[in-house]
Amino acid sequence: MKRKVEEFYPDWYHEEAPAGSWRSILKWGDPNEFKAPSRALYRMMKDVFDMTDDDFKEKKEMGLEKVEYDSPSHFTEQQLKDLAAIVGEDNVTTDDYARLSVAYGKTMIDLMRLRKHIAENLPDAVVYPRSHEDIVKLVKYCNDNKIPMYVYGGGSSVTRGVEPVCGGVSLDMRKNFNKVVRFSEHNQTITVEAGMSGPRLEEILNHAPEILHAKGRYTCGHFPQSFEYSSVGGWAVTRGAGQNSSYYGKIEDIVISQTYVTPIGVIKSDECPRNATGPSIDQIMMGSEGTFGILTHVTLRIFKYMPENRFRFSYVFKDWDSAVTAAREIMQGEFGYPSVFRVSDPEETSIGFRLYGVADTPIDTVLKARGYEDGKRCLMLGFTEGERHFSHNVRRRIARICHKYGAMFTTGIVTKAWEHGRFRDPYLREDMGDYGLMLDTLECSVNWDNFMDVYKQVRKFCKSRPNTMCMTHMSHFYPQGANLYFIFEAKMSDIDEYLEYQYGIMDHIQKAGASMSHHHGIGKMTAPWLEGQIGSKELDIYRTLKKHFDPNNIMNPGGTLALDLPDEQRRDNKGILEGKKAEIPHYDCDD
Amino acid sequence: MKRKVEEFYPDWYHEEAPAGSWRSILKWGDPNEFKAPSRALYRMMKDVFDMTDDDFKEKKEMGLEKVEYDSPSHFTEQQLKDLAAIVGEDNVTTDDYARLSVAYGKTMIDLMRLRKHIAENLPDAVVYPRSHEDIVKLVKYCNDNKIPMYVYGGGSSVTRGVEPVCGGVSLDMRKNFNKVVRFSEHNQTITVEAGMSGPRLEEILNHAPEILHAKGRYTCGHFPQSFEYSSVGGWAVTRGAGQNSSYYGKIEDIVISQTYVTPIGVIKSDECPRNATGPSIDQIMMGSEGTFGILTHVTLRIFKYMPENRFRFSYVFKDWDSAVTAAREIMQGEFGYPSVFRVSDPEETSIGFRLYGVADTPIDTVLKARGYEDGKRCLMLGFTEGERHFSHNVRRRIARICHKYGAMFTTGIVTKAWEHGRFRDPYLREDMGDYGLMLDTLECSVNWDNFMDVYKQVRKFCKSRPNTMCMTHMSHFYPQGANLYFIFEAKMSDIDEYLEYQYGIMDHIQKAGASMSHHHGIGKMTAPWLEGQIGSKELDIYRTLKKHFDPNNIMNPGGTLALDLPDEQRRDNKGILEGKKAEIPHYDCDD
Repeated sequence: MKRKVEEFYPDWYHEEAPAGSWRSILKWGDPNEFKAPSRALYRMMKDVFDMTDDDFKEKKEMGLEKVEYDSPSHFTEQQLKDLAAIVGEDNVTTDDYARLSVAYGKTMIDLMRLRKHIAENLPDAVVYPRSHEDIVKLVKYCNDNKIPMYVYGGGSSVTRGVEPVCGGVSLDMRKNFNKVVRFSEHNQTITVEAGMSGPRLEEILNHAPEILHAKGRYTCGHFPQSFEYSSVGGWAVTRGAGQNSSYYGKIEDIVISQTYVTPIGVIKSDECPRNATGPSIDQIMMGSEGTFGILTHVTLRIFKYMPENRFRFSYVFKDWDSAVTAAREIMQGEFGYPSVFRVSDPEETSIGFRLYGVADTPIDTVLKARGYEDGKRCLMLGFTEGERHFSHNVRRRIARICHKYGAMFTTGIVTKAWEHGRFRDPYLREDMGDYGLMLDTLECSVNWDNFMDVYKQVRKFCKSRPNTMCMTHMSHFYPQGANLYFIFEAKMSDIDEYLEYQYGIMDHIQKAGASMSHHHGIGKMTAPWLEGQIGSKELDIYRTLKKHFDPNNIMNPGGTLALDLPDEQRRDNKGILEGKKAEIPHYDCDD
Repeated sequence: MKRKVEEFYPDWYHEEAPAGSWRSILKWGDPNEFKAPSRALYRMMKDVFDMTDDDFKEKKEMGLEKVEYDSPSHFTEQQLKDLAAIVGEDNVTTDDYARLSVAYGKTMIDLMRLRKHIAENLPDAVVYPRSHEDIVKLVKYCNDNKIPMYVYGGGSSVTRGVEPVCGGVSLDMRKNFNKVVRFSEHNQTITVEAGMSGPRLEEILNHAPEILHAKGRYTCGHFPQSFEYSSVGGWAVTRGAGQNSSYYGKIEDIVISQTYVTPIGVIKSDECPRNATGPSIDQIMMGSEGTFGILTHVTLRIFKYMPENRFRFSYVFKDWDSAVTAAREIMQGEFGYPSVFRVSDPEETSIGFRLYGVADTPIDTVLKARGYEDGKRCLMLGFTEGERHFSHNVRRRIARICHKYGAMFTTGIVTKAWEHGRFRDPYLREDMGDYGLMLDTLECSVNWDNFMDVYKQVRKFCKSRPNTMCMTHMSHFYPQGANLYFIFEAKMSDIDEYLEYQYGIMDHIQKAGASMSHHHGIGKMTAPWLEGQIGSKELDIYRTLKKHFDPNNIMNPGGTLALDLPDEQRRDNKGILEGKKAEIPHYDCDD
């Protein structure tokens, strides 16, 4: 009997990156966690990207070399002594590796720069504050001395939000500023320091009886894809959303109170759930992305931990229109909302079925036999939560609406497969990057009226580039609209080429009338589009607040939220592409 | 057989107020609607207020006289011509009656002034804008000429919010600025002009198939007690809440987008349900109470109209502690929230039972027999809404929790009685005022941790005055807290005496740590307490925004939101009463 030749599958680099290497910084999350493209995805990538096995035999730009660059700290000995006098000697460093490791977030342009050994926009020192009081002193010192201040929370920013483009200090919150400040089971709130990590908070709440002497177990309800490497402070300052936000709400629904240290003093909102005492202080500060001041304490709502009431579902629809209509009807049904809730377009469904192991199974055979064709069919998945009867009813109502729109129930197995990988997809980018492949995402907020236009126009642009995957889904739903999320993959490792493509997508998101971000925030990356979207008079409000809180522009300066963005970087929504090169904005920080 | 002498019951004045009279302005709502204290309440008032039938034989300060005052408009002929050129001649008036009728809202101090023929703080002209464009022109004209601008929406302000203390123009929105601008059944939103009245909006939505060619019927979900005489614009600028807000949300949950005309230009937020594009423009503008600019268009969420799914409930608890604990558990149960939801304290329950006709019925007998004692027992009432199964489940969960805390079900009859009178209580004040009786309310926002302190301390002060009723309830609930609402009644018709009492209550609300308003707003009345509550740095944020939008201070000047409140009017939360007389603040408008 002749054996089939074994199919080639790349020899992915699944070793811990060398200590002190560029790769150890660009790597997502756990140094010993990896996620290779599955064999199915590998085959698909070769097909779509027009590549052969030979293209996957040699890795490049792996960043295995030790971090070295020639960009010394500008701080004087005295300045370093002054900082050490505030936070202690152990909590200030000018070490090159430490400085680079807080300079970038985790967007594609960050990973590309690290692979190419580009170390730019570095802080002059990394500082590890221990308390609110430390931060009060640091802000006073930096303001008196006009030293720029940046904050590094979980480090998962995908908007260049943390990047210290004007140097100065970067406050790394992970090390010392991550404690529980107060817990009230009665109020169902917890107050934490801004550097508290997502998983640690969830662990504390799940184990509240043991750790906090509580009667019950709780959950934070906020699980962004970056959850494992995100911080509570980052959630709030960017106006983030977790994957379960359709039920638990976006971070602005979860935050009850915040404390910020600004150059003009401490701003603190009260802990009443709601009031009518003028504009909301919380909502004025949330979304300021470090440009008004430094978030120190956050009081969050907490929720009962009831995983036993989680009911998983998945449905396949014959087409995108019926899937979207059903999703809208579900969100407008007034029976409560599902928790995780996603609807994938035909391209994402097709790829997802391969990734989740549905393709070519008996389920797939039945689907095809019943006319759910690959390339047209769309997957909806999610789960319900809350009190048992409530959760059960949401599931039943969803079933009824899905059947009405001709969907076939495909069990909770698909959902479990998605859940299993929900926080692990970012690891894919390391293996892909080793072979010059790019995987990135952009998201925007739409209402039901403009959603289909945005979907079509943006996808049309994405797909105008040959050999490119563009998976699209809706998630984070509301009765009035949803988040629309684009995942694109291509063979692309040149920064300029990448930026031109990315800029084109953002131009088209804006042109089609969507809001430029639903939950990633603006940072420095999307800043050129902000004014075109929200309007000049509206942006002036932010500029006025900025000047009020931070007259010396020391708080996250260098284009964040377009507050100090040079005019020539601005992209309006009319002649958007003409005469404007796609490039990483550079700022004159001496102004 | 000897007949019992018929019990005396006052001869209430239930006639339409004379045209052009002071009473026609102080009267609530419909000129032909009246609500007299029931016989039970009448007996109770005599008892508590230490009055006899004789005290109810002669009415005084009824305001039946024709409005006359000597306070001519300061506008020149040219100015009036200029205004007429913008809005048309028919839409500008300097008529004394028209000017007085938009000068006050409906708080106790307003009614007292009208009864005493005090006409102060009048506008120099009343203008009736017809469109957004009219308002753009009016704002430009007034800003160029430094003419103060006030807005009169539904006229139901209880915070002196509308009062034109610096003269100028008052824009009466009711007449011409009340149309539907856009309706999207797909988005489940409606956009209206700010002068749209509550009942008209609800009528349009309930009859959406006939009026808007919609497929379904809708509700606005926002029903403040002032509903019948409130406007959509007023709901938004004050951060109001309807009685059904535990289910439908407070106005900031319902508003999707707003357009404001400010002296520096038009501010408009986008119509996406959520975004992460910097601080929320909607939340910065909402709560500005006319001090940043004039709200012209509001886009609101709408909800399915399903009265058939409304399940009414009422329960009686043995005491306040168990009622409050049950309410908290209901709000923290994660099975959805009831719509209307109220828990009355023992005093309000006692009075409510008389008003709703429960006292001395078989239900009352059973209650007493089972140990639910008058003076200790507490009433919880409400109803559930939404999709049928959802609504049903909320009702069942509530039942289970109430039984756990020893409550007795008292059917939906009590709730129906409350519903029947829900919008009619304000009419009571006319009949009471005729006999020198005061009925007023104050509200505040609390979290569960500080709620009992606030309740006890404020009530202690209220009851320190002899012969005074103080009914208290919680309503507008959240998992983290609730609105705490005080209704006080006494024989009191002297303005200074009234103010001293009211100021004392507000001092105690603040001292106990509550937020100064949950949904009435701040206006000019509560302004002296605002800084003490939210903090000086926090108030400075509002002042900075104010200066940005309105550099000439023409927008609702004269103390609103404490933006231009003289220091000597400010009451801090330490030495609150010392050296400070309780008086209506007077402002120097020439600055």
